[in-house]
Amino acid sequence: MTNNEFIRVDSEKMQAEFIRILLKTRYSPEKAGRLASVFTTNSLEGVYSHGVNRFPKFIKNTIEGFIIPDATPELIHNSGCIEQWNGNLGPGPLNAEMATMRAIDLAIKNSMGMVAMANTNHWMRAGAYGWLAARKGFILICWTNTCPNMPAWGGKDPRIGNNPMVIAVPYRKDAIVLDFAMSQFSYGKLETFLDAGKMLPFPGGYNKSGELTSDPGEILNSWQILPTGYWKGASLSLMLDILASVLSGGFSVHEVKSCTSENRLSQVFIAIHPEKLFNFKLIDNAVDNIIKDLHNSVPAEEGSRVRYPGENISSIREENLKSGIPVKKEIWENIMKL
Amino acid sequence: MTNNEFIRVDSEKMQAEFIRILLKTRYSPEKAGRLASVFTTNSLEGVYSHGVNRFPKFIKNTIEGFIIPDATPELIHNSGCIEQWNGNLGPGPLNAEMATMRAIDLAIKNSMGMVAMANTNHWMRAGAYGWLAARKGFILICWTNTCPNMPAWGGKDPRIGNNPMVIAVPYRKDAIVLDFAMSQFSYGKLETFLDAGKMLPFPGGYNKSGELTSDPGEILNSWQILPTGYWKGASLSLMLDILASVLSGGFSVHEVKSCTSENRLSQVFIAIHPEKLFNFKLIDNAVDNIIKDLHNSVPAEEGSRVRYPGENISSIREENLKSGIPVKKEIWENIMKL
Repeated sequence: MTNNEFIRVDSEKMQAEFIRILLKTRYSPEKAGRLASVFTTNSLEGVYSHGVNRFPKFIKNTIEGFIIPDATPELIHNSGCIEQWNGNLGPGPLNAEMATMRAIDLAIKNSMGMVAMANTNHWMRAGAYGWLAARKGFILICWTNTCPNMPAWGGKDPRIGNNPMVIAVPYRKDAIVLDFAMSQFSYGKLETFLDAGKMLPFPGGYNKSGELTSDPGEILNSWQILPTGYWKGASLSLMLDILASVLSGGFSVHEVKSCTSENRLSQVFIAIHPEKLFNFKLIDNAVDNIIKDLHNSVPAEEGSRVRYPGENISSIREENLKSGIPVKKEIWENIMKL
Repeated sequence: MTNNEFIRVDSEKMQAEFIRILLKTRYSPEKAGRLASVFTTNSLEGVYSHGVNRFPKFIKNTIEGFIIPDATPELIHNSGCIEQWNGNLGPGPLNAEMATMRAIDLAIKNSMGMVAMANTNHWMRAGAYGWLAARKGFILICWTNTCPNMPAWGGKDPRIGNNPMVIAVPYRKDAIVLDFAMSQFSYGKLETFLDAGKMLPFPGGYNKSGELTSDPGEILNSWQILPTGYWKGASLSLMLDILASVLSGGFSVHEVKSCTSENRLSQVFIAIHPEKLFNFKLIDNAVDNIIKDLHNSVPAEEGSRVRYPGENISSIREENLKSGIPVKKEIWENIMKL
């Protein structure tokens, strides 16, 4: 492959370029700044697929009218500790940030709160909202549906979504954040392996003959990605979609027809306020002990170490702040032309 | 193998035997009746591993003092739509039923409610509480931690639990219920395959040399079961444990030392009241359309059909009501001697 040359882009330079392009794409200065921060932070923290690499698609989807720059979410209904919102097709990351903050407000008032949002757009990196809430001291459970990009268990054609889900818990001055999709590997990850000329470490989908394979190219050809844990991830995906569309009153995966624009998604955000628990002061110590026990695992491979979800984020961030964010040269050149 | 002869036991006969034994084990008539129903219903609905097959262990754990027959849960703290309870080591299934009903009460009042319970015991079939809530018209999300029965991802020794989780949604007069543990196969399932002299359909754990294997005997020897979806199920297991112990103030997996008694578990029950949603009257139709789309999957194998979680429960129940509950002859004979 010839296009695999990487460069390092300074995060402030990246942020400035994103702002320039967002302003050209009819985003207000305030929204352009916030969105640029989302894409830059996701890249700084190593989630390039939903940071710099995805930025051109976000701009394209805005220009095509799938994302409406000046739309803001609207409260449709509230009852007890639940609120239902219409995302009005505004930019997904800003809608999701708003929903997270509203769920936190509800949790401050009721110890736990839920915001369900219909008609929103791709929120980019799922984990971002977990980090946002947990760094403020709140537990967050959130998930989104997607377009149909995975066969159901026992099926061949794409019917269910990979529906990423996040569970985030504050931990001392930082957080433990699980951010995982219901497919064993993302399509982005398959492309990374294909680019590198590597096989997947485990089967990740089916080839066109319906056999399980670890060959990323074969899976990208069949569009038959494997649910994580076979029938288990497929079932969890279905339930998350049912909950997202029932709770928000919005579209279900089968109604999100296009995987190109992937708009009118449904999302759920549940926040919990740990300060309201009787054991609040004991929590950091309890989590310390869980993490200590995990770290005491006998490693499967000598010299390796078991880590908790999100444990490596701060070191990736530091490295990228210092050395710049790694981007394929071709991608960055295309962004500069926008 | 010589002990694989199965008999069919009438469900009323089974219920009566369970009551007889529970009364002998110091359960009150009221609790004996309720517990007998739990074990009989789990068996009727095909979950033999946490029904009739597990009944002798439940009795043994009671006699050994791990389960306290007359203990009832106690409210420790409430705040907004969250309640924290102490299970006082009472019988797990009754504690879990109570927690489910309290979560429902909180949801009636606040649209959503959570009960977190510390110091409880094994609840047997996780899905039972999902069916209980969903058949009453409530969405339920619940999970439990367990003893350390699975290595963390990248580790060799058991540090995390298989921590079963349930998501249940009411659906017309019945429910859609996902009941799944964080291991790809349960130890019970491994034993079933071993008994039948069969290999697992997919790798289910490691052999003593640390290699992935589909041989149930090798995995039962190594006690290194595979998390569902490799690192994904391992991470979800960890997060569910952190949440269960943080929210309840109870034990974490690493503190639940014994996998024989497996007591002092922590559990979480979140109920949602769909009637409080603006789109309540549209929900059945929306779920119908999701299920219709799922059923329209092109089957991977000719003549097969894609199903939703829990879809086959009612036909198993009908068959077992009519023909009796299938039990290994040896197990039933041992129960009759209790």
